[in-house]
Amino acid sequence: MTSSGSRGHRSHPSVAELVSSARELRTAAVARLVSLVEGNSPQLRAVAAALAPYAGRAQVVGVTGSPGVGKSTTISALTRAIRQQDRTVGVLSVDPSSPYTSGALLGDRIRMLEHSTDKGVFVRSLASRGRLGGLSAAVPQALRVLDASGFDVVLVETVGAGQAELEIASLADSTLVVLAPGAGDDVQAAKAGILEIADVLVVNKSDREGSASVVRDLRRMQSYRAAPDGSWATPVVQTVAAHGGGIDELLAAADGHFAWLRSSGGLAGRRRRRAAVEVEAIVIDRILAQLATQAKSTALDEMAEIVACGEIDPYSAADRLFPL
Amino acid sequence: MTSSGSRGHRSHPSVAELVSSARELRTAAVARLVSLVEGNSPQLRAVAAALAPYAGRAQVVGVTGSPGVGKSTTISALTRAIRQQDRTVGVLSVDPSSPYTSGALLGDRIRMLEHSTDKGVFVRSLASRGRLGGLSAAVPQALRVLDASGFDVVLVETVGAGQAELEIASLADSTLVVLAPGAGDDVQAAKAGILEIADVLVVNKSDREGSASVVRDLRRMQSYRAAPDGSWATPVVQTVAAHGGGIDELLAAADGHFAWLRSSGGLAGRRRRRAAVEVEAIVIDRILAQLATQAKSTALDEMAEIVACGEIDPYSAADRLFPL
Repeated sequence: MTSSGSRGHRSHPSVAELVSSARELRTAAVARLVSLVEGNSPQLRAVAAALAPYAGRAQVVGVTGSPGVGKSTTISALTRAIRQQDRTVGVLSVDPSSPYTSGALLGDRIRMLEHSTDKGVFVRSLASRGRLGGLSAAVPQALRVLDASGFDVVLVETVGAGQAELEIASLADSTLVVLAPGAGDDVQAAKAGILEIADVLVVNKSDREGSASVVRDLRRMQSYRAAPDGSWATPVVQTVAAHGGGIDELLAAADGHFAWLRSSGGLAGRRRRRAAVEVEAIVIDRILAQLATQAKSTALDEMAEIVACGEIDPYSAADRLFPL
Repeated sequence: MTSSGSRGHRSHPSVAELVSSARELRTAAVARLVSLVEGNSPQLRAVAAALAPYAGRAQVVGVTGSPGVGKSTTISALTRAIRQQDRTVGVLSVDPSSPYTSGALLGDRIRMLEHSTDKGVFVRSLASRGRLGGLSAAVPQALRVLDASGFDVVLVETVGAGQAELEIASLADSTLVVLAPGAGDDVQAAKAGILEIADVLVVNKSDREGSASVVRDLRRMQSYRAAPDGSWATPVVQTVAAHGGGIDELLAAADGHFAWLRSSGGLAGRRRRRAAVEVEAIVIDRILAQLATQAKSTALDEMAEIVACGEIDPYSAADRLFPL
């Protein structure tokens, strides 16, 4: 193993050294690798190549739901429960609507402070860059870093509903959809098709009024769905995450789904789906980067100008930019 | 004007005939054109070319906010107020999280029933197809149909928060961000960076407890933002959309923003931005269509397989699929 530029002052660790440290769950190394894949650095390719042999071992759990239902509290409580079983946890918080990484998820970080001295827990917030095209490739790559570092469980949280949730679900082995009574989103959540992606439904704040009716609604909606023999019956788990209530049951449900995936042979399919999403995201990022190059960007501006004034239609403009 | 295949049975109208009927706001023709652009039909290009000269006249207003804040009710009330001024209205409801167009927005449609016999109102729900890559090109193209048909105002509603909201904002001349007290999303909304895209902030259900504090929070957050001379001062409008309360003020605020865009010269910039987003969406759709072709799709599956088992990294897989 070589390190360059070490003339008396502290040398930068090589990618191989970083990966080796990350594999011992050293926080600084894991964090540096996430930054490298997030920032699209020149070392990105080397990092990806070095991680490849170690990826695919973590149990990846997506946690999603509308703002205010208590996702962060649930994640924090789950983290505690997983640690009590001596398993290690990586947490990724993804805010797809924010172009800023900085303060956006400060509240979440503060809630996770109790884990900040625990080497078996790694927490990182990621903002997608607000570009057209959904989640950036940085999200699956950051997930890949935590997976390859060797965390037993990786929790991926999305803030907000919509497209990003579907994409996170396509990266996860299991998806927990969190709802809460009185958030006005019980029926709305069903409306948004969110139930389709749930492997486990979580009714948080279940000490609140209206909790029973949310559970009833969810069970009724599920009864409308065809469930062939041997398929997974999505459980509805009630929690009061703020006090840890129901969290052991929730973890058991998530682990149960993962065990079912393994035994049914479904896990390999989900892993291939994740890999396909990863590769697609990289391809799309490349196309967008091409669009953003000086020459293409000027051409796009010019096309936008003549499309805006009705001189040509947008399809003809697309032809000129990227001939079929 | 020619129409083919008319041997006794009813002939299909040509694209030129459809556009001509749509320009008289005939509902069936407008609906057919939206279906043609939404369904990626062979006539798509002809439709786009026929519409181009007429686009860019409508006042496009995006309406966004978390589930449960009353977006649909607000849209319905706004539609009524605009009609009272004898202006025509097209409404697009976009559900970016649902792969289904069908029942998903049934509730909204029912709420809009009062306008169903009014020829000056056109309502359509669109589901983006849940693909990686955010909103499909169908959304800006459907918007273009309503615009070119000659509706004075086009309201575009998104269900759910996140990436889709930013994209809708990039298509609109003005963006109304709707919040409601007690939905638990007042601070959360700020967290998600949603304030950044608001041209008008709407506090709906403002007869509820907590309304004043939401307004106060919003004003305080705005006061932190730099506002150079001559820039638009985002108003905060309180509404009770269910009873029509504050809706005239809201419409005045939206119209005020549009007038400011015109007088400040900002409108041309927003229209160019919309055109650029349209062209980009088309280019991305094409790339994705290429990925979905039989040959590429098989190749992607094969790549996903070897990425999933750690044989190669996803960047090398992307290289093989789409050489740099």
